[in-house]
Amino acid sequence: MPQLRTALAQVNASVGDVAGNSAMILDWTRKAVAEGAHLVVFPELVLSGYPVEDLALRKSFAAANRAELEELAGKLRAAGCGDALVVVGHLERDDSGPRNAASFLHGGEVVATYHKHYLPNYGVFDEARYFAPGSRLPIVRWHGLDIGVVICEDIWQNGGPVAALGEVGVDVLVCPNGSPYERAKDDQRTPLVTGRAVEAGAPMLYVNLVGAQDELVFDGDSMVSDAEGRIVARAPQFAEHLLFTDLDVPAGGYTSTTVEVDPGRPAFEVQRIVLAPDPLPGYEPLPEPPLPEPLSEPAEVWGALVTGLRDYAHKNGFRTITFGFSGGIDSAVCAALAADALGPDALHGVSLPSTHSSEHSRSDASELAERLGCHFQVQPIAEMVEVFDRQLELTGLAAENVQARARGVTLMALSNLHGHLVLATGNKTELAVGYSTIYGDAVGGFAPIKDVPKTLVWELARWRNAEAEKRGEVPPIPENSISKAPSAELRPDQVDQDTLPPYEILDVVLDGYVEGDLGYADLLARGYDAELVERVLQLVDRAEYKRRQYPPGTKITFKAFGRDRRLPITNRWREVKP
Amino acid sequence: MPQLRTALAQVNASVGDVAGNSAMILDWTRKAVAEGAHLVVFPELVLSGYPVEDLALRKSFAAANRAELEELAGKLRAAGCGDALVVVGHLERDDSGPRNAASFLHGGEVVATYHKHYLPNYGVFDEARYFAPGSRLPIVRWHGLDIGVVICEDIWQNGGPVAALGEVGVDVLVCPNGSPYERAKDDQRTPLVTGRAVEAGAPMLYVNLVGAQDELVFDGDSMVSDAEGRIVARAPQFAEHLLFTDLDVPAGGYTSTTVEVDPGRPAFEVQRIVLAPDPLPGYEPLPEPPLPEPLSEPAEVWGALVTGLRDYAHKNGFRTITFGFSGGIDSAVCAALAADALGPDALHGVSLPSTHSSEHSRSDASELAERLGCHFQVQPIAEMVEVFDRQLELTGLAAENVQARARGVTLMALSNLHGHLVLATGNKTELAVGYSTIYGDAVGGFAPIKDVPKTLVWELARWRNAEAEKRGEVPPIPENSISKAPSAELRPDQVDQDTLPPYEILDVVLDGYVEGDLGYADLLARGYDAELVERVLQLVDRAEYKRRQYPPGTKITFKAFGRDRRLPITNRWREVKP
Repeated sequence: MPQLRTALAQVNASVGDVAGNSAMILDWTRKAVAEGAHLVVFPELVLSGYPVEDLALRKSFAAANRAELEELAGKLRAAGCGDALVVVGHLERDDSGPRNAASFLHGGEVVATYHKHYLPNYGVFDEARYFAPGSRLPIVRWHGLDIGVVICEDIWQNGGPVAALGEVGVDVLVCPNGSPYERAKDDQRTPLVTGRAVEAGAPMLYVNLVGAQDELVFDGDSMVSDAEGRIVARAPQFAEHLLFTDLDVPAGGYTSTTVEVDPGRPAFEVQRIVLAPDPLPGYEPLPEPPLPEPLSEPAEVWGALVTGLRDYAHKNGFRTITFGFSGGIDSAVCAALAADALGPDALHGVSLPSTHSSEHSRSDASELAERLGCHFQVQPIAEMVEVFDRQLELTGLAAENVQARARGVTLMALSNLHGHLVLATGNKTELAVGYSTIYGDAVGGFAPIKDVPKTLVWELARWRNAEAEKRGEVPPIPENSISKAPSAELRPDQVDQDTLPPYEILDVVLDGYVEGDLGYADLLARGYDAELVERVLQLVDRAEYKRRQYPPGTKITFKAFGRDRRLPITNRWREVKP
Repeated sequence: MPQLRTALAQVNASVGDVAGNSAMILDWTRKAVAEGAHLVVFPELVLSGYPVEDLALRKSFAAANRAELEELAGKLRAAGCGDALVVVGHLERDDSGPRNAASFLHGGEVVATYHKHYLPNYGVFDEARYFAPGSRLPIVRWHGLDIGVVICEDIWQNGGPVAALGEVGVDVLVCPNGSPYERAKDDQRTPLVTGRAVEAGAPMLYVNLVGAQDELVFDGDSMVSDAEGRIVARAPQFAEHLLFTDLDVPAGGYTSTTVEVDPGRPAFEVQRIVLAPDPLPGYEPLPEPPLPEPLSEPAEVWGALVTGLRDYAHKNGFRTITFGFSGGIDSAVCAALAADALGPDALHGVSLPSTHSSEHSRSDASELAERLGCHFQVQPIAEMVEVFDRQLELTGLAAENVQARARGVTLMALSNLHGHLVLATGNKTELAVGYSTIYGDAVGGFAPIKDVPKTLVWELARWRNAEAEKRGEVPPIPENSISKAPSAELRPDQVDQDTLPPYEILDVVLDGYVEGDLGYADLLARGYDAELVERVLQLVDRAEYKRRQYPPGTKITFKAFGRDRRLPITNRWREVKP
């Protein structure tokens, strides 16, 4: 049976950096070819970065992408990679509009181009806004094997290009992806990849981006399924990786170009391109590397959050981070994430005590800094708050909020002085119910735990400390920050549960309402207390403006409070019955 | 020829307020029927409000819409309107998903329902995300005339339901719309309506929403075109209105239900429903009201901005407004808009002088308040700024920004104390180039002139003053605020043009880059200076995060810096050549 050494390049592209991404593709292809790869596959839109959003609509950007693609083909040949077949995802534009494309590069030329057929238009995806769907199916015969390509969503929908390729016949299917991380996504992704391999009757080479772009984290997790649906190779999550597989598969010798699988849609136009009709001489395959151990649930979430924060900082030119160390659990977890993402020396914690701050909040904050080995300073806000209070005669909510805002102004001033990225440390539960001060604790460029419910914040803290202990390191998070009752400390003896239901209950109701899209009646049917449900739903429905003003943050669920959850601000709909 | 008295109800719906919108529909139908209307037509999604965004995906919301629609049919009959035919836009959900629907209500029943076919998915529109496209064409015979319905985008695309209805034959075409205002949109809208009437060979009853929803303003401008493409009746812009027209048109006596106009798409299924086969006895038509005078360009923009601000405040429960009166042109125009929108007694201006504030900025601010007759107070920020400066040892940009932020904290404290809506007074030019302080002058719930370029701000000021003079009123805006050189006054003797190109040039380049989507080469080809273009493009490309954090504001162009212009924050694409 024909053999083929394939390499999946699980790389971290930057949106808009066409030249940089091109240089990266060249570099990784060189490494792959040096190890004898015959076929090298890069992820979806790797040349432009993903997702490009409205940049896709700029003609000059599409033109730059196409020009760079053609130059890249030449550079690959010049670098001695012209004998390999390289699959590169890129943007281009033709008479029908922008295309989400993947091209085969070989011998200094762009030899064939596929246009993504199924364009996802839900959740974080707006591809129907940007791209025209493709109907052309190039199949390249390469060292005796017929290689077809589809892109990401094409394998998430039934019928379409995978079914068409299965019908006309391919020996190998490659699939470049820009598939964002979500909790437990592998429960869907792995059976999908193996199922489509079986459907097409061919091994599936699934390669995904890694790294973060704004709110999205791409977790990698590239994999190879054989035609029987068995995972034979797999890359780790959250790390760049070059995944080699030696295929040894039967050649079908397919010649059909006729396909008619999807009535009501344009038929697919099959293009068969013969680059190398004959199999390679037999060679000794690489030893099969063991499949990586799957990450535990908290380890996977932690990896996503670290990646999200690290790439947001670095890709936006920030080398250092600051935010308020309150002594509470949220800022402690953010600090541990920041230290893991950028190193403790990049982290500049600030304690911002007010007259309502407890002794333990000050000592827990300084203990956190000590455990992490990060920079730390104390900036009391009493004097600033006093001027506002006196001049404006503040009382009640106004007096509470001015404390959070004095902290926000202080952190932004330190950011302006020293170039730090400011983090907002709010969690998903707070955001859901609007338990934060706009222009106060909501100040910042990035919100690392914005999509993490409060109960999961605690779980992550315990997990991270236990990991440290396993490794013989100092657990980063003070035990007292985990165990004490959470408080905003904006008035004397305040605790969160004065205002909010217990977090264990609140998080379950929020999960049903937000993630599950359950209505009031559905929630009651699940046995939750009517008064509690009413209270929670009203809080959520009224906090849309606050959420809108919150900084972006790493998304770990399908329904993060991010840019993709589109709700009107002016909205009189109340789920709750009168 | 059969006669028919039609009434187009140009109303202001509220998103999510299904019960309130239903009561409004009942009320306006009563008024129309009292004047003898036989057919009453409401705008697109009037029952749910428009646009509902991700609310469309909530099953409980769709169910509430459908239930209210059926109740409304009963209420209309109970109110003595059961003999009229009423067309109501509403959300519903079936096995294919949510639908953007319009139903014919008559005799206490929902007699037929149309589903929007063309779903716009560009600019502010995301309808492919929400709705399944329809393929059913109900045609109702009513007093001898065959009445067909299409919705909004259906008339903006060639082919599809309008062509199909033209082919099978209708006597009258009704078109409910949620068509947002844009500058000069009537140049497209009017010929479109008249052209489709000619294409269908039938009068077109075009009814649009009026009022604002978040960043969108619906300007009304409902109109009737006869089958020859002549506008025979028209409602004013920016006002609720009931537009009566007595039709007297030939009955085609159409019976065909066969249509095959759009190969490659599902064929339309024509449903002919006979409610009243015979023409009405002849009656005396109402006198034709004169067509309203078209508004001048500045009057139209002003109307949009006043409507946007008024509805944002009222629909979000704000009765009063506050913001900083700087003495400059932006805050002066915002003040005049606020006074026009909510009345001068609702406006609480605050002068927030710093040590760098000029004497004229203080006197211009108080003169503005006097001219408007609004509330006014002075809150110097020197003492607050001094504490931050001293404690944090601020210099340079950090010292400049802390002034803007002390103002932001002060205004938010006043908002917390008194319940005012805070306005951010930045204009489109500033937003484009990032000339604002995040958490400083960007503080607020709404930004009325966010989509107004600086040069248009001046033009609006002059126009508004001239209007006042025409009416014998005090011109609201101090002459000095219009004529003096703009300055942020964050350091001594600072003026905007220290940092920015002259606004006349800047606005033209920005218009090309943002609105025209021109690339670097295109802009040079238009003869603009290369250095200037490079500088402007770099400023724009780097200000995405700031724009994202800015409050929402009324949109008057296709490419406002609003929620619909979707650009990555992390974006390494630079249009400028090295």
